[in-house]
Amino acid sequence: MATRRRSTKRSEPERLGVWLFGALGGLATTVVVGARAHARGLTGGQGLLTETPLCDGVPLRPIADLVFGGHEIRPGTPLQAAREIHEQNGTIPRPILDGVKADLAAFGRSIRPGSKSNAGKTIDRLAGTGRPGAPAAETLREQIARLTADIEAFRRRNRLDRVVCVNLVSTEPALRLTKTHRDRDAFERALDRDQRTAVRPSTIYAYVAASLGLPFVHFTPSNGALIPAIRKLFEENGAPYAGADGKTGETLVKSALAPMFRYRNLRVLSWQGYNMLGDRDGVVLAEPENKASKVESKDRLLSQILGYPLHSKVAIDYVPSLGDLKTAWDFIHFEGFLGYRMSLQFTWQGCDSILAAPLVLDLIRLADLATRRSENGPLRHLACFFKSPIDVEEHDLHAQWHGLVRYLTDAGAQG
Amino acid sequence: MATRRRSTKRSEPERLGVWLFGALGGLATTVVVGARAHARGLTGGQGLLTETPLCDGVPLRPIADLVFGGHEIRPGTPLQAAREIHEQNGTIPRPILDGVKADLAAFGRSIRPGSKSNAGKTIDRLAGTGRPGAPAAETLREQIARLTADIEAFRRRNRLDRVVCVNLVSTEPALRLTKTHRDRDAFERALDRDQRTAVRPSTIYAYVAASLGLPFVHFTPSNGALIPAIRKLFEENGAPYAGADGKTGETLVKSALAPMFRYRNLRVLSWQGYNMLGDRDGVVLAEPENKASKVESKDRLLSQILGYPLHSKVAIDYVPSLGDLKTAWDFIHFEGFLGYRMSLQFTWQGCDSILAAPLVLDLIRLADLATRRSENGPLRHLACFFKSPIDVEEHDLHAQWHGLVRYLTDAGAQG
Amino acid sequence: MATRRRSTKRSEPERLGVWLFGALGGLATTVVVGARAHARGLTGGQGLLTETPLCDGVPLRPIADLVFGGHEIRPGTPLQAAREIHEQNGTIPRPILDGVKADLAAFGRSIRPGSKSNAGKTIDRLAGTGRPGAPAAETLREQIARLTADIEAFRRRNRLDRVVCVNLVSTEPALRLTKTHRDRDAFERALDRDQRTAVRPSTIYAYVAASLGLPFVHFTPSNGALIPAIRKLFEENGAPYAGADGKTGETLVKSALAPMFRYRNLRVLSWQGYNMLGDRDGVVLAEPENKASKVESKDRLLSQILGYPLHSKVAIDYVPSLGDLKTAWDFIHFEGFLGYRMSLQFTWQGCDSILAAPLVLDLIRLADLATRRSENGPLRHLACFFKSPIDVEEHDLHAQWHGLVRYLTDAGAQG
Amino acid sequence: MATRRRSTKRSEPERLGVWLFGALGGLATTVVVGARAHARGLTGGQGLLTETPLCDGVPLRPIADLVFGGHEIRPGTPLQAAREIHEQNGTIPRPILDGVKADLAAFGRSIRPGSKSNAGKTIDRLAGTGRPGAPAAETLREQIARLTADIEAFRRRNRLDRVVCVNLVSTEPALRLTKTHRDRDAFERALDRDQRTAVRPSTIYAYVAASLGLPFVHFTPSNGALIPAIRKLFEENGAPYAGADGKTGETLVKSALAPMFRYRNLRVLSWQGYNMLGDRDGVVLAEPENKASKVESKDRLLSQILGYPLHSKVAIDYVPSLGDLKTAWDFIHFEGFLGYRMSLQFTWQGCDSILAAPLVLDLIRLADLATRRSENGPLRHLACFFKSPIDVEEHDLHAQWHGLVRYLTDAGAQG
Repeated sequence: MATRRRSTKRSEPERLGVWLFGALGGLATTVVVGARAHARGLTGGQGLLTETPLCDGVPLRPIADLVFGGHEIRPGTPLQAAREIHEQNGTIPRPILDGVKADLAAFGRSIRPGSKSNAGKTIDRLAGTGRPGAPAAETLREQIARLTADIEAFRRRNRLDRVVCVNLVSTEPALRLTKTHRDRDAFERALDRDQRTAVRPSTIYAYVAASLGLPFVHFTPSNGALIPAIRKLFEENGAPYAGADGKTGETLVKSALAPMFRYRNLRVLSWQGYNMLGDRDGVVLAEPENKASKVESKDRLLSQILGYPLHSKVAIDYVPSLGDLKTAWDFIHFEGFLGYRMSLQFTWQGCDSILAAPLVLDLIRLADLATRRSENGPLRHLACFFKSPIDVEEHDLHAQWHGLVRYLTDAGAQG
Repeated sequence: MATRRRSTKRSEPERLGVWLFGALGGLATTVVVGARAHARGLTGGQGLLTETPLCDGVPLRPIADLVFGGHEIRPGTPLQAAREIHEQNGTIPRPILDGVKADLAAFGRSIRPGSKSNAGKTIDRLAGTGRPGAPAAETLREQIARLTADIEAFRRRNRLDRVVCVNLVSTEPALRLTKTHRDRDAFERALDRDQRTAVRPSTIYAYVAASLGLPFVHFTPSNGALIPAIRKLFEENGAPYAGADGKTGETLVKSALAPMFRYRNLRVLSWQGYNMLGDRDGVVLAEPENKASKVESKDRLLSQILGYPLHSKVAIDYVPSLGDLKTAWDFIHFEGFLGYRMSLQFTWQGCDSILAAPLVLDLIRLADLATRRSENGPLRHLACFFKSPIDVEEHDLHAQWHGLVRYLTDAGAQG
Repeated sequence: MATRRRSTKRSEPERLGVWLFGALGGLATTVVVGARAHARGLTGGQGLLTETPLCDGVPLRPIADLVFGGHEIRPGTPLQAAREIHEQNGTIPRPILDGVKADLAAFGRSIRPGSKSNAGKTIDRLAGTGRPGAPAAETLREQIARLTADIEAFRRRNRLDRVVCVNLVSTEPALRLTKTHRDRDAFERALDRDQRTAVRPSTIYAYVAASLGLPFVHFTPSNGALIPAIRKLFEENGAPYAGADGKTGETLVKSALAPMFRYRNLRVLSWQGYNMLGDRDGVVLAEPENKASKVESKDRLLSQILGYPLHSKVAIDYVPSLGDLKTAWDFIHFEGFLGYRMSLQFTWQGCDSILAAPLVLDLIRLADLATRRSENGPLRHLACFFKSPIDVEEHDLHAQWHGLVRYLTDAGAQG
Repeated sequence: MATRRRSTKRSEPERLGVWLFGALGGLATTVVVGARAHARGLTGGQGLLTETPLCDGVPLRPIADLVFGGHEIRPGTPLQAAREIHEQNGTIPRPILDGVKADLAAFGRSIRPGSKSNAGKTIDRLAGTGRPGAPAAETLREQIARLTADIEAFRRRNRLDRVVCVNLVSTEPALRLTKTHRDRDAFERALDRDQRTAVRPSTIYAYVAASLGLPFVHFTPSNGALIPAIRKLFEENGAPYAGADGKTGETLVKSALAPMFRYRNLRVLSWQGYNMLGDRDGVVLAEPENKASKVESKDRLLSQILGYPLHSKVAIDYVPSLGDLKTAWDFIHFEGFLGYRMSLQFTWQGCDSILAAPLVLDLIRLADLATRRSENGPLRHLACFFKSPIDVEEHDLHAQWHGLVRYLTDAGAQG
């Protein structure tokens, strides 16, 4: 297999760098554990689109070639994080945990203190005393220089041709967008005068990736990352980006089911969605200012798919006992022939990080592919991965999917 | 409005005949009540695909132009049937019932005694003493001649250019198919020698429609209707047909949801579906020999959509108190990244006849359109209407839908 | 039957008065329609505890003997209210509506303008222009005198020995209780100086009933009705009272299920309850200040039954399309042997007024019985009817029930 | 506390023997693992009624004093069985498994080959080649002598004063009961003439326990165990017995909820229960002849609690992917005031062995207590533990519970 790979991609560098913002979170930990377990043959490709026959012939980088590093604000090691997941959720089985210990240690050596700039009180609280080695005080420009140097050092040390950056930090309170965020120069001036209220950690991370011309996957709903000024910077530097907010659970089901009501001309009167989750994610989303970002991302799609406004609600509640095992109940009230009213309800019991981790791996490989194909700006063909796909109005999962299939067919033919 | 219609379809006959086999069943009654209520402006187009913007510009016959007649084995009148539905299920509201009384009386005058040939013991029992005017004894050939004459008389009396035939009779026990059913001549010989075990009522009805060269919509799962010999007869006489088994409730949801699991490479381990319904339909399906036809039609699609075999079950139970308000619960157990197991469950609470009646009206209009466009044989573009679309392997609701959209776009452009 | 009644209650007055505060609400309308339909033999005793064998031999007043009047702030007639229910929810069937028209007209003649004193903005809005005949301005003392006179006139006109008063007005914003409400004299002085912020409409209604020495059923959660000062007044005047907040749906199920977890020593970790309803009730409860009263009443019981604090939530959402057909979903996460976690979830689909109306009729009859038995103060044996039974710590439905059974057995023996 | 125990049971033997029929099944394994983990302080008392304050002062034997042995027909060791559970269901956590390894080894040394007499084809198949050491052929009398000797040897070796026997073998096909089973002598004669069709393995086990005068807990629904002839033998030998069929999941919820409908005079029209489970238990119950016993036990209680016949169904389906994590969905359709129909549905997701194991431990301790109190015959006060309590007509969980509370209060006062 090594032989085949070498022959088909002789001109490619040996390995692909992956830089995770939020490197010790439940999702990042599951991504790294899963990638390494897959590389070592300890687990199959379940959950990975890029391991299905659809991607046969598409020149994607093997998962085994990924090298991981990242930024993090909390103390701890990847092994501690993985053990916590094993014990609390059981989603990382013991044999897999045991099998990737050395890999987690290597990953841990590439984790550097991240950004806490204006992160909001809940995230500050979770960060606790912070990560050892983080500077006590620094200006935004100093911070940007530091984070940039971290990624550059990772690239050099691992002799990487390319690093895909992925934003996995907790959902932040919404950033109030002003003229400053819309204009490249205005935003640079805000950084120059150290205007901390103009940024969130995601803003800094996205800015660093854009400055370095690296592809960027924005997997959370935080609106502070891909502000217009930063999108322009990505485009100037010829790097593509994808986002926002991975579509993993209740919203995925919504976007799969809603078209059915449209096909049958059944009018949806009300669609109520109740989400419960525990874990660090649940703590963050229990905070009204953080929750608002998420709810908007989850609620918008229905009227777009159905073509009319409707009564809808998305609630997110923190239920500590559930841990990462999210449970959601949706109730859909609809009207059919002769005005008769009927209902559909569903209960989704999934594990967010188990559902999201393979999407992250898929997105890394597809962002790498797009970069090699010299694609630039928002990767619209990846809409089916996101709750709020950038510059895409289509929320129907099936239409999004068929767009991706066309892209992959084309990429496979050329690859 | 009459003026506009006349001007746009000057070369079309004034009205379109619709002949319903099973004319006093809950579904047929809802079809006629709904069509007339719509024609009189008593109800909107909810549930009707053919009343959505997708059909703008497609030259479909207005619902107000449909004239109804049919065959039935039970005694009674359409008004009695509609009143029973109003009282037991509440799906036909009183103002609508009052508004279409005269129309139901007219429909009643075009109902003739149907076929009970080898219908099975449950349907025989429901038929009771049978419909007044039915001949005490007749050979299959005599019966065919009588039913044919009924439709011809309906056509002449109403000066109809075309009659669309629709099979709405209760699900029959499966017919064991032999060489006799595969060969045109062999089947004619079986009729000649009055071989009653070779047919079900649906066989006779389909044969009559095919002989008359009339378009035929097979809305039930009974396998005795569109046997190969009769399909050939339709094709010889240049008439199209569509079927089988309207996709209205739990199976509709299944075919909308299953693709989502494929997109995300989430392996479905088990898919259990439990259906409960009361009513005459429930009585018939409580009978194992009748239920078998239905279950096979509901269960087949999952492995086709997912691409692998899986543990699945479809149960149908008779729960008298529910009447026509069907309730179904599905439990889906699936495996994701790292082999982790999760679940989705849904409860569907719909009313079968309310969901099915608009599909029947859509199919009548689309079968009429296809006939005018000189289409012949199975109407594959109507796959999204059926649980077991004839000669179509695709069960993914969304792929089926996109096929229909392409057809309608084309028909609209030409219309 | 008339004979039997006459003989057993020779010394009793002919009829029992019932005065409904909130006389045109959905619940009051269903109470009167149901009572009269039952009296006329148009419906059975389903839902009525007092019509089961448990009450055989207990000297309860026949439902046919109840005479209804009440206070209301909105314009309209009982027939209009009943028609609205018939059309929107279908819970009052047409034959019943037709059969009690004359009775509703009679009831309408005994409805008088009620109290809007400090009702809160949502109830004010729903009251619209108010009921014709209501005085433009009056002091609290003038209002009390007017309402008292209304009930006295009703009693005289119908030659009633006793009138049971029932509070069915919409849930009010909580009244902040102060020393004024705790002391009989202080409260009288507050009325004297027309201190409107010290009362809600329920306060006025309860005060009127207490002053007249009439039994009082408090069927809503509003805390302004049975304040200590008024409870003392009831006790001084020798009248019993019962409340608060009828236990009809999700809370009923909760109080039936929670003991099971206790019996099995299964530790409930989280109990999340999501309630959805439309209708006027839903509008009122959508208002945070009104909702707070209700949520507290629904949430309190779990830790009392289970014996330990737990993570719980009660959400109430306004979903207009549901009307009075309330849907609630509860998720219960619990821990068993070896610390293993499991779950139970339920979906309740009930109609609040259909569930509550028979409880109101039961309570009227049982309050009348208690009065005849010279009982006084809070009727603790009626705890199983209420979410927040007054002076009762026991929330276990079964324990409450066994208490009622003992009472009825005793009353039957003496009756 | 150790002091208290010593003082209260000075005259008691040191330890209590427990003999498990079906010693390597999932339930028996969880019982032993759990008892030893509890004894070693590795897990709390969750799930155990006998560890709640209700039993304070009741002279129950400490769990740490139980010594286990048993009969089994399959090969293997307790450690293998526990590992299989850990890996497939995760219900036995790794730290607990590690902590009780030595105890499982000791238990394994007390497991002897059991009875396969007329067990039915499914159980035969699961037994495979059988347990090493089982005699190739023996008469019923020889088998009884062998099994008796096993228990006697266990008692002697561990110097036990008393052994409680517990039947945990898989649900057997129903035994057709004849005169032979009703009469002590007739049954003895059937054993003498080696009439194998007259027994099931449970019959043999119960006979052995009865002959030895040992208390017997019948935790399964098999009707062959407590046949009249054997019940007489228990009574002659002065040993009490309890059964049948542990009430752990869906039936438990049923018996907790059904009384609520009675209290409110809400007429249950239909109660449909669908159970899904995998595992060895699921395989056995997938067999129609074995399932029949279980279904009857689960279905009977509703009409008893409600007081009228109703439409009900209990389905049990084998869904391998679920393992021991049973999922059940119940749908309850009921009618209230004015004949209005409503519904309640619930989904139970529990783990059968986790729910059953603490009941088994409770029953062992309570059967031991009853024996010390010289109780004899069926232990009716333990009805709340069983789906089909012997000689008890009351199925209402709450009434059963209050019976137990009275017994324990009494036992505590005397203890």
